Amino acid sequence: MNSISERLNFRTLEWRGDHLRLIDQRALPGKEEYLECRTAAEVVSAIKTMAIRGAPAIGIAAAYGMALAAIAGQDYGEAALLLKNSRPTAANLAWAVDRMTLICESHDSAKIVGEAKAIEADDAMMCRQIGANGAGFLADGINVLTHCNAGALATGGIGTALGIIYTAHFSGKRIHVWVDETRPFLQGARLTAWELGRAGVPHTLICDSVAASLMAAGKVDCVIVGADRIARNGDFANKIGTYGLAVLAAHHNIPFYVAAPSSTFDKQCCTGEDIVVEERDPAEVTSISGTRICPADSNAYNPAFDIAPGSLVTSFITEKEIIGAGDWEAGNPHGLLP
Amino acid sequence: MNSISERLNFRTLEWRGDHLRLIDQRALPGKEEYLECRTAAEVVSAIKTMAIRGAPAIGIAAAYGMALAAIAGQDYGEAALLLKNSRPTAANLAWAVDRMTLICESHDSAKIVGEAKAIEADDAMMCRQIGANGAGFLADGINVLTHCNAGALATGGIGTALGIIYTAHFSGKRIHVWVDETRPFLQGARLTAWELGRAGVPHTLICDSVAASLMAAGKVDCVIVGADRIARNGDFANKIGTYGLAVLAAHHNIPFYVAAPSSTFDKQCCTGEDIVVEERDPAEVTSISGTRICPADSNAYNPAFDIAPGSLVTSFITEKEIIGAGDWEAGNPHGLLP
Repeated sequence: MNSISERLNFRTLEWRGDHLRLIDQRALPGKEEYLECRTAAEVVSAIKTMAIRGAPAIGIAAAYGMALAAIAGQDYGEAALLLKNSRPTAANLAWAVDRMTLICESHDSAKIVGEAKAIEADDAMMCRQIGANGAGFLADGINVLTHCNAGALATGGIGTALGIIYTAHFSGKRIHVWVDETRPFLQGARLTAWELGRAGVPHTLICDSVAASLMAAGKVDCVIVGADRIARNGDFANKIGTYGLAVLAAHHNIPFYVAAPSSTFDKQCCTGEDIVVEERDPAEVTSISGTRICPADSNAYNPAFDIAPGSLVTSFITEKEIIGAGDWEAGNPHGLLP
Repeated sequence: MNSISERLNFRTLEWRGDHLRLIDQRALPGKEEYLECRTAAEVVSAIKTMAIRGAPAIGIAAAYGMALAAIAGQDYGEAALLLKNSRPTAANLAWAVDRMTLICESHDSAKIVGEAKAIEADDAMMCRQIGANGAGFLADGINVLTHCNAGALATGGIGTALGIIYTAHFSGKRIHVWVDETRPFLQGARLTAWELGRAGVPHTLICDSVAASLMAAGKVDCVIVGADRIARNGDFANKIGTYGLAVLAAHHNIPFYVAAPSSTFDKQCCTGEDIVVEERDPAEVTSISGTRICPADSNAYNPAFDIAPGSLVTSFITEKEIIGAGDWEAGNPHGLLP
């Protein structure tokens, strides 16, 4: 039997000897185009413009960006700074760059590229493990709601939230997914629906504002999302809209799961208040596909993420173990936050 | 001093001797185009395609549609049925058509047109009164969040939810409005932002999913929305997304107001379960401005409204009086539901 990755049949990122090839996520689902990054600066630009996005995936891209800088003999400390600052919220970005910085000191290109590949391979392994750890939460016939894209396109593997869904689906369970379109960048409509379609997972696209009424009607059995950064107390950042979903799920007594690799946990962040939320260009809200949707003189506010308290999370599903809400109060006994 | 209507300086609907002129709300905010309806069938089409929308406004349009049928010597019973069925959720539509049916029996064109004009004038008066009744809830310096468009474009007057905001604004209070873009039809981005801009009311456009984090940050002092139908127990239908906002407002202890004329109250509906929620074409979700935003084979679910329980509403603000949540349990002492 083919692996889930083979069934999905695309590569989000791929190291090709002297450059990093990325699927250009801005062109999906209309076109399957690839972008070649030959310098660290090109990787920075791909991350900033969201040609590549998703917390684990931008961590991996940044690792290859560090490799490109080191191979070119550039100042890798400078490259590290530019890559870390390309987007502020995802923990995995700084985590991967820090891991690469240590190895760059060797000035051994093969070793440096090998480390970036190891980060990618580790992530793929973590996705598989998250999928295995979480699939048991999804009973046969279940309706799952997800927000944004925490899938293969967001990682070096089968995804985190979607990794769990794929694992359950390919084990023979009937899973139906409500896909939040995820304004403003429409990662749900463009990316999650595209991935789920390739994998043959039944799904229905909804506007983000539909989730509450589906919950009230008993049509959502659980919510699974990814995370961009998780603080020591369980507060976590994820795509804007996640916090509202967490409140709504709690109101309707619906389990709310967060799927994330351990590289998303940030021991420097005590609470959600320490997490920097990126504010992006209002033009992402005021125009869609080049068409202005509001008056020329209207302004928009466009935070890319929001912060939800850990108390609203039923379980964090990591590659290591499953952490319940009560575990945070018990003082992190899991070793995820040393 | 000019009235608020004069300051807004546009007419949502206007009877022009032998036809009804409507501002085409599908073209806003890019173009200010007008549509001329010369038959009841053209009014039905304008309502179905949402060239005109908003519960009170489609009631008024339907009233003129009845007048057009009667003047043309058509079977006004048949026209009444077509107009009532043009959209199912708004109570005001059937209310206005029933009021017109009685007068159509006179077969007196002047009287029939006069009744439609009276329905429009009554609505304008009700909007002014709702504005006066509600403006006291808005303190100077307040941040109000609204969803969809319950403004002049949704009524024959200055609007319901926006009528309150205009009344407070023009009385000299500093009001800032968070405008939910309101997917999928973007009534907030296209219509509410356009109206508020014309009136000079400071406002900021947000994606619908941003409201929760603004509430958590203390940046929303109250929520005001309109309603399409209100049941005897206070359950009410409004634009999809309203129910979620009501839950989120309650979670954050933020007042949640519903502004609506008494024609929105439906004594035939005991609870929200009796309200028919219109499901619209999935293409409204899957494409924006003609551009497909999801894969060709992805389906979407597109309910136009949701139902919120009256218990989540701080106050219903009508042209007659203000109804608190507790009043419903006391058995409708207000005579709004005879």
